[in-house]
Amino acid sequence: MSDTSLSFPDDTHWMRRALALAAGVLSSTRPNPRVGCVIVRDGQVLGEGATQPPGGPHAEISALRDAAARGHDVAGATAYVTLEPCSHHGRTPPCADALVAARLARVVVAMGDPNPLVNGRGLRILREAGIAVSAGLCQDEALALNVGFIARMSRGTPWAWLKLAASLDGRAALHNGVSQWITGPEARADGHQWRARSCVVLTGIGTVRADDPLLDTRLAPTAHPPRKAVIDSGFSISETARLFDGTPVLIFAARADAGKAQRLAARNAQVVLLPQADGQRVDLPAVMQWLAADGVNEVHVEAGPILSGALLAADCVDELLCYSAPMLLGDAAPMAALPRLDSLEGVRRYAYTDVQRVGEDLRLRAHLPSRWQALRDRVALNLSS
Amino acid sequence: MSDTSLSFPDDTHWMRRALALAAGVLSSTRPNPRVGCVIVRDGQVLGEGATQPPGGPHAEISALRDAAARGHDVAGATAYVTLEPCSHHGRTPPCADALVAARLARVVVAMGDPNPLVNGRGLRILREAGIAVSAGLCQDEALALNVGFIARMSRGTPWAWLKLAASLDGRAALHNGVSQWITGPEARADGHQWRARSCVVLTGIGTVRADDPLLDTRLAPTAHPPRKAVIDSGFSISETARLFDGTPVLIFAARADAGKAQRLAARNAQVVLLPQADGQRVDLPAVMQWLAADGVNEVHVEAGPILSGALLAADCVDELLCYSAPMLLGDAAPMAALPRLDSLEGVRRYAYTDVQRVGEDLRLRAHLPSRWQALRDRVALNLSS
Repeated sequence: MSDTSLSFPDDTHWMRRALALAAGVLSSTRPNPRVGCVIVRDGQVLGEGATQPPGGPHAEISALRDAAARGHDVAGATAYVTLEPCSHHGRTPPCADALVAARLARVVVAMGDPNPLVNGRGLRILREAGIAVSAGLCQDEALALNVGFIARMSRGTPWAWLKLAASLDGRAALHNGVSQWITGPEARADGHQWRARSCVVLTGIGTVRADDPLLDTRLAPTAHPPRKAVIDSGFSISETARLFDGTPVLIFAARADAGKAQRLAARNAQVVLLPQADGQRVDLPAVMQWLAADGVNEVHVEAGPILSGALLAADCVDELLCYSAPMLLGDAAPMAALPRLDSLEGVRRYAYTDVQRVGEDLRLRAHLPSRWQALRDRVALNLSS
Repeated sequence: MSDTSLSFPDDTHWMRRALALAAGVLSSTRPNPRVGCVIVRDGQVLGEGATQPPGGPHAEISALRDAAARGHDVAGATAYVTLEPCSHHGRTPPCADALVAARLARVVVAMGDPNPLVNGRGLRILREAGIAVSAGLCQDEALALNVGFIARMSRGTPWAWLKLAASLDGRAALHNGVSQWITGPEARADGHQWRARSCVVLTGIGTVRADDPLLDTRLAPTAHPPRKAVIDSGFSISETARLFDGTPVLIFAARADAGKAQRLAARNAQVVLLPQADGQRVDLPAVMQWLAADGVNEVHVEAGPILSGALLAADCVDELLCYSAPMLLGDAAPMAALPRLDSLEGVRRYAYTDVQRVGEDLRLRAHLPSRWQALRDRVALNLSS
């Protein structure tokens, strides 16, 4: 059976393997996308690989090197790649050129790369070299894996999810602040997995003051932890807050204090001065734009009801990541403080995308369908170009 | 292959078929349990049936008659029954005797019947006649199908579920009462399916006053609709309320009004006078006891936050049936009005049992594990007797 006659189910099988490779490097490639690549001939894997940390080889180069190390010539083989191969000289040479040089017969790509430096050029290089190109296989899975990178490239802001943990009746804490433990240890560990895959874990000064959280990924250890960030408009954060643990911290403030900023810099914290939007808090969309400009793909928000509500109101949240504990708490604190509505018209309607049992709790994910669709259009449009 | 050598997976297959037959008569057997029976020999179905409406044949008799109608002699065959065959003369003669008379070789039973008139006697009759009896197969599925009957028989109260519909942050209505439509049409239709399987749909006078609901099963039509019931301590219900549609209605009141009761009787409504528990509302556990004594197995509660909260506080709710819409409503009405807690100690912890997508919404079911376990113990204990 020649490569080009591979049936669709086989193509799907190999693309899923490439997606799994990409899923294995969730927290080590930022700011680059996580990509997987599998090179196959006659139903045999010749080589495979995933994106290495920045400066290291991309997935295609990893796979080509893996094939070479196994003593395989990949000429005439098919490569499955979860993202359009790059066409530009960045920290590494273009992957599209490497695939051409390796004389592959066919390249199957899950989705296009809206990076203005790529944006269809990767596929064009392959096609012009006479390589058969199939595109769009497992596109939604591929998008889910790099939704933040695609958001940053195509709209200039990261993909932000809001992590919530509450009772079935939506209460995040009792009236007196007691919230330990509404959800269970499995939900907390799962939450740390989501922290670990993000580029930035964002909270508010209220949470720092109330809980003095570490905001780390101790329940999902990784060699590449995300940065921490605090919205602290008044720049009132305690210099002894536990989150200053030597890893990079961003503080978004609307008030300057050069001495304090200098002392915190010694603790690896960077103060970012931004304008106030409403005379009281830094402009939240500006925070998101700043983060994207700084290479942030995914933001994990884990904040109290006030900042959570403000981010929702400012349209800075793309997705809800909600842990629901099987209990009713009644008169207690809300998940997010939102203004009173008089009608259901205009209320944001999310779409449930995934429900998992996590210990005794449920994890409900829901995103804004229009946001998702906009990214889908961007990665699909490229493929027809 | 003889019947007695049937492998366990085959046994499970036939018991599942019997369970499916029982699930097909969810709303027509009350106050009797829904039972299914399949009679099999050499991998061939000889006859099958489910419980007919009260006064009609039970599942075993239906299956025996079906086999006879098909011209099959069932001697030496195996019967799969979802509930221990009855041993008493009720409106129909004992099924255990009929199975013995039919000279079956083996009977597989999913769970015991804690009805004091049965309670192991059915199995004893079979064993004493030399029939091989296997018990406990698919016990949890069988219990789920008749959880209300088992509750009524073993603890003297129905199994009550509280139907809730709310946003992801647990809001059942806006501050101004707007609640149409938070959840979608599929969730409403699914809710009517649950009404239809119950014996009584229970609401409060507040809901009748605010919404004047029909409280019927129009979205899940059935020839055997449940009764309607209203907690109306002050007996203030309007005589023109839409729920008085000629089908039976129960009104639980703490205040007598003979003239009004007589007029409502003409509309098929029965007033049940009960004591007040707290000087303001009829004693809710007394309502549940009255209902069980009247043959009610399952109660579908669909009420406003005040009665919902009162039923929860009075420990009258076994299960939550919650439709969750993918939106956040913020400052709005709660699902259930519950007292303020100062600590999480002592809070009721439910267990999620089932999550389904229903249209755009999710249906989350959760029950009190101790209540379920108590019923499990009752149906399992019988089998070893």
